[in-house]
Amino acid sequence: MPATTGEASATSLFARHRDLLGRAVEACRTRRNWTAYPDDPAAHPAGEEGRAAAEQWFGGQLGRPFDLDQPGPVVVQDDEVSPYTGEPLGISYPRSDVDALVAAALAAWPAWRRASHEERVGVCLEACDRLYRHNLELAYAAMHTTGQSFPMSYAGSGTNAIDRGIEAVAQAHLAHERVAPSATWSRDFGSTTVRLDKRYRLVPLGLAVVIACASFPAWNAYPAVLANLVTGNPVVLKPHPSSVLQMALAVRILRETLADAGFDPALVSLSVDSAAEPVAKRLVQHEATRIVDFTGSAAFGSWIEQNARSARVYTETSGANFVVLESVDDLAPVLRAVAGSLCLFTAQMCTSPQNVYVPRDGLPTSDGVVPAEEVAARLAEAVRAISGTPRRAAAVMGAVQAQSTLELLARVRDEVAARGTVLLEPAAYEHPEHPAARTSGPLLGLVGLAEHDLFAQEQFGPVGFVVVADDAVQAIERATRDAREVGAITGFVYSTDEQFVELAEELSADAGVALSVNLTGPMPLNFSAAYSDYHVTGLNPAGTATLSDESFIAGRFRVVQSRRPHVGAGEEDA
Amino acid sequence: MPATTGEASATSLFARHRDLLGRAVEACRTRRNWTAYPDDPAAHPAGEEGRAAAEQWFGGQLGRPFDLDQPGPVVVQDDEVSPYTGEPLGISYPRSDVDALVAAALAAWPAWRRASHEERVGVCLEACDRLYRHNLELAYAAMHTTGQSFPMSYAGSGTNAIDRGIEAVAQAHLAHERVAPSATWSRDFGSTTVRLDKRYRLVPLGLAVVIACASFPAWNAYPAVLANLVTGNPVVLKPHPSSVLQMALAVRILRETLADAGFDPALVSLSVDSAAEPVAKRLVQHEATRIVDFTGSAAFGSWIEQNARSARVYTETSGANFVVLESVDDLAPVLRAVAGSLCLFTAQMCTSPQNVYVPRDGLPTSDGVVPAEEVAARLAEAVRAISGTPRRAAAVMGAVQAQSTLELLARVRDEVAARGTVLLEPAAYEHPEHPAARTSGPLLGLVGLAEHDLFAQEQFGPVGFVVVADDAVQAIERATRDAREVGAITGFVYSTDEQFVELAEELSADAGVALSVNLTGPMPLNFSAAYSDYHVTGLNPAGTATLSDESFIAGRFRVVQSRRPHVGAGEEDA
Repeated sequence: MPATTGEASATSLFARHRDLLGRAVEACRTRRNWTAYPDDPAAHPAGEEGRAAAEQWFGGQLGRPFDLDQPGPVVVQDDEVSPYTGEPLGISYPRSDVDALVAAALAAWPAWRRASHEERVGVCLEACDRLYRHNLELAYAAMHTTGQSFPMSYAGSGTNAIDRGIEAVAQAHLAHERVAPSATWSRDFGSTTVRLDKRYRLVPLGLAVVIACASFPAWNAYPAVLANLVTGNPVVLKPHPSSVLQMALAVRILRETLADAGFDPALVSLSVDSAAEPVAKRLVQHEATRIVDFTGSAAFGSWIEQNARSARVYTETSGANFVVLESVDDLAPVLRAVAGSLCLFTAQMCTSPQNVYVPRDGLPTSDGVVPAEEVAARLAEAVRAISGTPRRAAAVMGAVQAQSTLELLARVRDEVAARGTVLLEPAAYEHPEHPAARTSGPLLGLVGLAEHDLFAQEQFGPVGFVVVADDAVQAIERATRDAREVGAITGFVYSTDEQFVELAEELSADAGVALSVNLTGPMPLNFSAAYSDYHVTGLNPAGTATLSDESFIAGRFRVVQSRRPHVGAGEEDA
Repeated sequence: MPATTGEASATSLFARHRDLLGRAVEACRTRRNWTAYPDDPAAHPAGEEGRAAAEQWFGGQLGRPFDLDQPGPVVVQDDEVSPYTGEPLGISYPRSDVDALVAAALAAWPAWRRASHEERVGVCLEACDRLYRHNLELAYAAMHTTGQSFPMSYAGSGTNAIDRGIEAVAQAHLAHERVAPSATWSRDFGSTTVRLDKRYRLVPLGLAVVIACASFPAWNAYPAVLANLVTGNPVVLKPHPSSVLQMALAVRILRETLADAGFDPALVSLSVDSAAEPVAKRLVQHEATRIVDFTGSAAFGSWIEQNARSARVYTETSGANFVVLESVDDLAPVLRAVAGSLCLFTAQMCTSPQNVYVPRDGLPTSDGVVPAEEVAARLAEAVRAISGTPRRAAAVMGAVQAQSTLELLARVRDEVAARGTVLLEPAAYEHPEHPAARTSGPLLGLVGLAEHDLFAQEQFGPVGFVVVADDAVQAIERATRDAREVGAITGFVYSTDEQFVELAEELSADAGVALSVNLTGPMPLNFSAAYSDYHVTGLNPAGTATLSDESFIAGRFRVVQSRRPHVGAGEEDA
């Protein structure tokens, strides 16, 4: 795309993407299925060749400086190691000084805040389109930093994440449209009619800091960056030091889009740090920072909430997601579905279930009551059918993002062995294409309610607890109480008893947990659809940022008015 | 009104107030003039007799226990002294234990959170209607605690505050209507079509604490209480210890409305404390507290923002509001308008201007340039025309809420005398009906920009600084920079130069200040119209709670979903 100049270009971008915006707005309203871009890599306009070229592009990045026009020394990112090859990527990035990025962002800001809403929407949707056009490269970058399989990197970290970004733009567009830009107001004071012209402007809040996580950065970063940008706020994006490449490429695409539309690319910048010398606290506490979006650990999320004193904070941290088995018709598809979600991306997703409750007296099915131990054993078997079959495991599970996850897994395994029964040892599988890949099948443990301290927290990674409860009512009460206290994003309930389903819905709603009922079949249990599924409720400690409702947008701009005596013939007040 | 039973009643309340809701919604959308109830006491349905009865009612409260069915010892409120009589009201209120109020609110909560949106809207609008029907009593209560004149107590603290409450209900209604209650979602996964029924519930956040200020409690408390209540959250309202009576009566009316509709009155309760033994911190830090609305000092507002760790916080604190005189046609009406707003309720309003900037080289008018000192002198004269005429002063200025304001006034007066010129000594006026009233005309000082530390903060009360600047551009830059740094809610600019007006609009928007341009005439400068004027922007330290936009509502409820396989013939996805 040739470089064009400013305003005209941004306005024409709005026209170019107007239809897509309309469809996204409609999807947000109806919450029916829609997606801007197909999630099958084979459908990408670049085709099979494009995929090969993208893989080659990725190979070409290794051991070299990443091309990003930001100030500062260019330093090799030692923390970035491919979970598939075990080798450092060896890519170097500019280590831009925080103050320099902030100063550049603030210097770039005036033109962006003065731009029209349509110009900003146009630029943001153009950026989404370009992210899609580069989605094959972005997918390889995601794969070799997060450990996701290529199809998941392409869809979950790609098209689906872009959809979440478009959703944020659409919600911001709706919020913008709802504010009357002006009004003529007239009222009598005594015998005099006072007539005022009022003008209402949407004013952005200020510098936004987006802190991305290691295992799934795009899914939260795209909506946060775009929500900030479209409402007029400049953004500094800080990726996790072990998962930089995809975010670096995304930032470059955003900067190019801004520059091509005539804006200063410094409106979006990348702040790279290292595990040894983190900069997140400096960014959060920078006096210019007005908005923080954070995805990561509960501990750091809580630090931010307590220390980001001049900023509005949106978080997604962690929680103890649950499955409650109350009664089923056919057990096999239920266990397949649960096993699938325990395996999906090695359970490194914030929506992965962890605690699977079964009733002590067994699970009623249409073939009779299945004893709790047998349910547990059959679940272990269903998991093993995935994790023990390398080709399937590779497609479903991918690799383990962080070495520390394996260490946690070993610790939890020993705890389970000491306090319950290890149903399934967390064994590595051999990746058919990447023999050096860091992999692990799930640990599945059988524990009683007494081991509450063990399962009433997120054990990040492929950890599943089969928890034996007195009955399903006790189970859903325990699970939702834990959600209120330590957080949970998703819950899954299986029951043929409508009364129980209703109870589960009530308790889950009270605890702020998105519930799925009797879900089986080909859709992964924890699939969250942009425009339709609300992700994170803000009602429990798992976070405050809902993708993407009005609360995700409302604080990022404010309304400022100006009023003056009405001039002219006196448009009548209705 | 006879007590009725639960659901039916609340639903019929919605029907009863449906038309009013529609008109409020329309006013929020268009931001044109509308008001639910006339603000002239003479138009009250109870008529002149009603006013006399209300005054009698007030007299009957003095020295007696206030009838409020809450637990705890009934204690005389020593801090409550009428600014008009100088006498303690001697009214005693239940000093309910914080934990007891919270426990009762949480026990009452389930039925309220399960109530339909229409039921809650019905109850809230019925409460507004009853507040209006009791507005004569409420006005006397406001008058003898805040020091407002009766007309202001009736309008500003009455009908206008009720309008702000209805506005919050209307905004919440719009927010509710925008969330699709359900959707059928279908998508292909491989060769299988997955079809899900999704249900989206609005879930309230939890216990809400509303902390009201001393001088104008209803204006912020009504919208905060109603915004919380209509979105399903129980409320504990803590009035300022010197300004309890109006809030106590409002809480009683709300409790009666709830009870008559079949709900537990404990959904709204009054937490009375004393200056010696405050409970605000305990309420804010209570583990059950999820929402805090605060109006009061910047210092305590900042403490809340830093210490209310489990709660979402909405604040309105203080700021240094400004007037910039750049050029005018006719100076006299401008000075009358500015003087009026320096006098209105003795400048004890968060919208009162404080710093009046004049250009060093004088103010261009159509009659030539008026020297800065002459502008200052003529402004002092315009103020004296009000404050020196007891009958006018009584109507415009009312009385001084707190003794400490007079002390502050004396201190600032001495500072001005030492560092500038006292243009107008802050002299008491003799109230024609209440000879013991605590009154004060404004202090008006002439200072240079060097006295920045003196005027770049809110000096609460009748303090006006005439600040001599090099020119109007310097003035608007200084005023808006101060707004960004210490907060400001309103700004007033007078200029015949469209370019300067544009600059003032840009800078004020950037600083989050609601600007009025070239405003003269019978409407008080700092009049803020419900449904039309956005009050507080959240862009500067003067507060985060905008009356009443989407951001004032968005955090008070969240959306929680439940999804399950679609049952039935398969409604097609559009």
